[in-house]
Order: sequence, then C-alpha cells, then structure tokens
Amino acid sequence: MASDLYSQLVHSAPGSFLAKQLGIPQPETLRRYKPGDQPLAGTLLIGGEGRLVEPLRAALAEDYDVVSDNLGGRWADSFGGLVYDATGITGPAGLKGLYKFFTPLLRNLGPSGRIVVIGTTPEEAGSGHERIAQRALEGFTRSLGKEMRRGATVNLVYVSPDAKPAATGLESTMRFLLSGKSAYVDGQVFRIGADDASPPADWDRPLDGKVAIVTGAARGIGATIAEVFSRDGAKVICIDVEGAQEALGVTATKVGGTALALDVTADDAVDRITEHVREHYDGRVDILVNNAGITRDKLLANMDEGRWDSVVAVNLVAPLALAEGLVNNGVLGEGGRVVGLSSMAGIAGNRGQTNYAATKAGMIGLTDTLSEAYADKGITVNAVAPGFIETKMTEAIPLATREVGRRLNSLYQGGKPVDVAETIAYFASPASNAVTGNTVRVCGQAWLGA
Amino acid sequence: MASDLYSQLVHSAPGSFLAKQLGIPQPETLRRYKPGDQPLAGTLLIGGEGRLVEPLRAALAEDYDVVSDNLGGRWADSFGGLVYDATGITGPAGLKGLYKFFTPLLRNLGPSGRIVVIGTTPEEAGSGHERIAQRALEGFTRSLGKEMRRGATVNLVYVSPDAKPAATGLESTMRFLLSGKSAYVDGQVFRIGADDASPPADWDRPLDGKVAIVTGAARGIGATIAEVFSRDGAKVICIDVEGAQEALGVTATKVGGTALALDVTADDAVDRITEHVREHYDGRVDILVNNAGITRDKLLANMDEGRWDSVVAVNLVAPLALAEGLVNNGVLGEGGRVVGLSSMAGIAGNRGQTNYAATKAGMIGLTDTLSEAYADKGITVNAVAPGFIETKMTEAIPLATREVGRRLNSLYQGGKPVDVAETIAYFASPASNAVTGNTVRVCGQAWLGA
Repeated sequence: MASDLYSQLVHSAPGSFLAKQLGIPQPETLRRYKPGDQPLAGTLLIGGEGRLVEPLRAALAEDYDVVSDNLGGRWADSFGGLVYDATGITGPAGLKGLYKFFTPLLRNLGPSGRIVVIGTTPEEAGSGHERIAQRALEGFTRSLGKEMRRGATVNLVYVSPDAKPAATGLESTMRFLLSGKSAYVDGQVFRIGADDASPPADWDRPLDGKVAIVTGAARGIGATIAEVFSRDGAKVICIDVEGAQEALGVTATKVGGTALALDVTADDAVDRITEHVREHYDGRVDILVNNAGITRDKLLANMDEGRWDSVVAVNLVAPLALAEGLVNNGVLGEGGRVVGLSSMAGIAGNRGQTNYAATKAGMIGLTDTLSEAYADKGITVNAVAPGFIETKMTEAIPLATREVGRRLNSLYQGGKPVDVAETIAYFASPASNAVTGNTVRVCGQAWLGA
Repeated sequence: MASDLYSQLVHSAPGSFLAKQLGIPQPETLRRYKPGDQPLAGTLLIGGEGRLVEPLRAALAEDYDVVSDNLGGRWADSFGGLVYDATGITGPAGLKGLYKFFTPLLRNLGPSGRIVVIGTTPEEAGSGHERIAQRALEGFTRSLGKEMRRGATVNLVYVSPDAKPAATGLESTMRFLLSGKSAYVDGQVFRIGADDASPPADWDRPLDGKVAIVTGAARGIGATIAEVFSRDGAKVICIDVEGAQEALGVTATKVGGTALALDVTADDAVDRITEHVREHYDGRVDILVNNAGITRDKLLANMDEGRWDSVVAVNLVAPLALAEGLVNNGVLGEGGRVVGLSSMAGIAGNRGQTNYAATKAGMIGLTDTLSEAYADKGITVNAVAPGFIETKMTEAIPLATREVGRRLNSLYQGGKPVDVAETIAYFASPASNAVTGNTVRVCGQAWLGA
C-alpha cells in the first residue's frame, strides 16, 4: 500500500535501467528524533520582516539557539535551520526578500538542515497583490526543496492573518518541522488557522494522558503509530481484524495499551469501540487514527465487484462511520483529533487503482469536510499521504525496481514507517489545535504527483 | 521554458538509460482538431443519473451521435466518447455507479477516445457525504487516465450546484474535452461556475469578431496562439519585444492582425497598448493572453540579482499590471477574458528555477485572485500550465534525454504548441462564460507533479 504510487515506474522495464544509475547523489542518513536530543543540530536563524518573526523568536528562544538576521561574522557557522517569515510580503516585488535572505546563507546549512518559509494563507490575504505574492511562495519553496542536498528539507507554512500575534497556534508546526520527526516531510505546504494553542507540559511527551484509537494497528505503519503515540505518553486502543489477533496482541502489549479485534466495516463497529472505551477508558478518547486500509488492484476494465466494494468499505466508508459515530455519541469530544491515511495515489491517481485512489481522494474530501464540520466542536481533522515507505511490502519488490521507487524524491531515499507516525503524532498533539484540514505528504518530496 | 518541468530527469544520467527502454507502449497519433471534421470519432454515450445528464444529451444531440445507457446490442460498437454524470452520487457507496458504468464499456472505446466524468464542485455540495464522494472522483479519474491507452483522455468536470439545469455553462467545456482540441489535456480537473453562457453562432468560429492581445507572439507558443485565435475568428494584437520585431511582423501578417513592439515590463506598457487599441480597434479588446515569459535558471545559492529581478518582472509583475491596467481603464470590460501561462514548475517546483517557479505559482495566485475580483465585471481569468511541448527549445535537448521528457506521461509523447493554444482559445471563448479561476495542465497527464 505504501508503495502504490510507484508501481507505475516500478513495474516498467526502464525502471531497472534507471535504478542502476541512481547512486548519485548519495542519500544522506537523515537525522531522526530521539527523546533528549537537541531539537536542532545547530543554530536557528529566524529572519524576515513579517508579523510572526518576533513572536516566533520568543517562543523558541528557550529550547533553540536562536539568532536574528544581524549575525556579523557568525555567517561562517553551520546553521541547523533557516526560517524566513514572509508574511510581510505584500506584492510580487517583495518576493525579492526571499532571494536576499536565502542566497548568501544556503551554503552554510548543515546536514539534515531545516528550511521553513512562513507565509499568510493566500485566500485570507489582505489584498490581491499580497495574495498573489503569498501564493508564489509555493513555487519558490518546492523548487528550493529540489535544490537542497544532504538531507535538508524545505517546507512552507501558511498562517491565517487572524491568528493572534503570539504565534501559539504555529509553535507545534515549527517544532515539528525543525525536528528530526519531520525527516521525510519535504516540499510540503501546511495551513495553520487562527486558533490559539497551549504548549504541552513536556514537548517530549505531548500526548501525556491522552487516549488514542489506532485502526490497523497489528502490523506495519499502524503498529508504529501505536508505538510513537505510546512514547509520546498516550494510551492506545489497538484495533485490527480477527485474523491479525496475535500480532495485534503483540503491539498492544508492547505499547501498554489494549487490543480490540474488530472489523471496522462491521455495522456494530462504533458500538463495540464505544463499549471498549467505556470499559477501559471512562468512555472518552482523544484521538482517532483511521489507518486501516486495503488494496485490491486491477485495471478497471478487469475489475470484479468485490474488489471495488471491499476497498470502498474499508478505506472510506468505515473511516467516515467511525469518525461520525464517535463524535456523534460523544466519545470523541472537545479537543479531539481525527487523522486519516490518504495516499499519493489519491492525489495523482495510479494505474490499476481506480478503486483505491477514489477512496484515498475521498479521504482528502473527508478531511476537508469534517475539519469544517467539527471546527466549532474543537476537533481537528487532518490526513497524511505516504510516499515510498520502506516496509515488509516494499521489501518484496525486486531490488532494482525498488531502487527506483525509493530514489525518485528530493531526499533520494525511501522513508520509514516512523516518519508517517511522527507526522500523525504531530497532528494528534493538543498543541496542534490550530492545525486542521491539512493533507500532508510524507514522501521526501517525491517527484511524482498531479 | 516549455520543457522546464523535465530538466530534473532530463539532466540526469539515468535519463538516457530510461529513454532507451521507453518505446513501449507505442504512442498513438493523437486525433487533433481540423475545422469541418466530425466533432467526435464515433458514438457518444452519456450515462449516469445526475442533474446534468438529460440537459447534456439535449445540448449535444444535434452535433453528436448521442446514445444513452440503454444500448442493447450496440455495446459492441466502438465509442468515440464516454461521459458519466456523477452529480447524482451523494455518498461513498454511490461511487459504485462509476464502476458499473465504465467497466463493461472500456474495451469499446476507440482510438483518441474521450472519457469525461461530471461531478458537483465538492466545496459546494449539499451534504458532507456528497462532498466526500465528489472529491473521490478525482482519484478515480486520475487513475483511469493512467490506465487508458491509444490516445484516450480522461478528465473531470466539476459543475456548481447553482448552475441552471440547462447546462449552458458546461457546454463549451464538454465540446472542448470531446474534441481534438484537447488532444493533450489528460487527467485534469475543470471547475464550472453557475453562470449561463450562450453558444456561439458557429462552434468552428467561436471568437468571431473578438479582439485579442497576445504577448510574446513573435515565436513559439505565442505565435501559435495568435494563429489559433485567428482561425477561430479573432483579430489579434501581436506583442513582443523590439528585438523580435521581424518575427513579430511575420506572425501579425500571417494572422491578419497588428504588431506592437513593446517591452511588457515598461512603465508605459498599458498606455501604449491602450493607444494601439484606440487607433486600430475602437478602444476595446476582449481577450488578454499573458504569454510572454522568460527563464533565467540558476541554483538559488548561485543566483545573481538580475536573474531574480528580470524573471519576476516579466513573468509576474507585467501580467498583473497589464490585466489590472486594461481592466481599470476600461479597455477590457464585460465579457473579457484573461488567460495566463503558468507552468508545471509553478505547481511542483523545479531545481534551478526558484525564481521562475515563484512567478509561475504566482500566476496561479493571479488567476485565483483576479477571477474573484473580476467576477462581477463578467471577466473570466484562467491559466494553462504546459508540460513537455515539442518546440525549437526542446529540439535542442539530446535525443535520448528528450525521449524521457516526452514519454513520462499517460499519452507517452510530447504535446504540440497547438495543444496549449487550443486550451487558451477554449478559455477565451464567449461560450466559456462560466469557466473562471481554473489552472489546467496541458501535459498528457505528466507523472511529475506535487
């Protein structure tokens, strides 16, 4: 499933030829998050002249070595991160600020360096010229992502102009993007709303005391999500089908959570989950991760009804039923988090996956729809779309073709299940209160897309 | 410029290896528009149970061999086009209609066949479940586009639920997508608003009596736009820089239009155009095509100020100034059309093109912004984003690497300048009154993207 996107190239004869030549550039060993590590491997330069630059410096000053534009001789240093607040750009001519800030600095960014550009949500910009310039940031950051080497990532964060200047809603996103948790998140656009957010007592345990449901938790990415949630302090209800009960038990034990063997497409799925939550967790959960999903690939011309029906039932109908059911019966309430798994096939389409891609595009629709519907309940809804993630499934792909799949991105390597899980944990954090309606790819800025 | 998107692969060593292997599948010779040809090479089957199916059958009955679902033995025929009205789908389960309609028909689609799915604009759908299902159509159509062979295209058209049932706003888009004019438009999403539109007196001369400005008209895509506009009945003001005056004269003569040597970045550009329009065209134009654009590629770390400034000035500041200037001084009024050139680099980013990609993403922002700003003036604003188009510039690319660039799409071939021009002419048509705010790729459903 994680590799769906690449089957087009991977199954083509040229793939193996391409693969042989893809040793250059060498992929960097990405810096990934370990509790207790420095939040950034080097100095953090925060520049620009927008409304968020000072609040951001203040918010991050305690945990980061923050410097401002005025560095004197220190530009010879190796920076861990470069952040540019572009919210002050009010028209096309102002885009020059990006050039002036970044060009002299780029050679001084260290390995696994972090570049973040902060803009104003274009559709909410104060003038037409501002909106156009803010929209232009996307072309800039996506290009810069394709220029950077040595594991550096470049992301764009749009912040609502209605957000309070204290930048509390922005902080969880900035900490995520600067950290090793976002090692494989590159070339993406995040949208932050106007809501405030409170920092957790401990940024290393942001989910302390939270209860999370993870479907498809027996193995693979689902099991990793459960582990990351547990590391971050959450209690996890691990759900998977009867047939996976043994592996499910292993996951649940590992994370100190509970196991619930359940087909998410069953009519009584919401009732059985609710019962489980009442029995073990006082009737209340904070997080729902709709991770369970299946593929039943076939060209549409050859597809049988069963393939269509089962994929739609598991990947789209069930996630929707679970989210609506648990919100409607009050199990998931104020402060709740819903996170879904979309896919690059849902964005770009994929040969042999009309059924799967429809459900994964539908997951984007679910995210758009429920994020709006649940906004006044204080529930956020987001999704991740994984790219080439190294799993048991991708291990089965022949070496040469696997090489193609994993190299066709700006980091020249596949991601790990933990990269997907970290992104989901960021969405699930109470500190991400202002982050809703996002579908973000975890793909190393894969070159394939729409 | 047209090939910008592919330089990433094209400049890589693996490119030549990949190219050698890319003879399969053989690219189809695409059916392209010729005046007087049949509008579709075969029967047009229009199915589905939405609000638009009957009006659409009625609108197209005169010029097409339209049949409905109920075909009896005729399913053995080769269809020219398959249209499915999915506006009746109100939830995920209803997506099954796509499967039921298309699966038995796909083998009967002829060469250069046309598939169009019509949906309801997700954000305007009547219920959450409907919105989710409508959003799912995008994953379905993009996947189906990657499955079809022999030059078939698959596109998705979202129609506002506020559109009148007569489907007048939809007709120009359907005729475009069914025709050979859209030969290289594949895997795209169109959005049609609620406005009505009147059909032209002659669908073979939709621009009769219109006056159009085309910048960068001396050569390449700009010259082709002028030719297609002229074929469609428009008078064309051909603009290009002083240095291109000779070629500009050739274009202007060929299309029976006027030539104006002008640097679009000059302070007096709007005044000089206005003067020209007063002198030759009674002070009024109908169409502005912001085609002029330049590239000045360099990695951002090595970029000089001149490259940044010139690209921003020509590609973004000038188009904005021209559109605003000609609207504000009344030269471009009610019924006006503004069409811009974006780029796949503006969507996905491209190595070495931070400046160019910023302006081309900005062009999408311009389209979003001005389409809203000018809606109540009856002026539409749209953009095209060309993929690999065969031009003099791409001819200079070494054969093997060129093969890669032109084959990485669902039609396995490069497009022609006329494909870009036809799409612009469709946006420019008076019949496209309900079509605004679209950025559409003309790329054969290139696999690269964001």
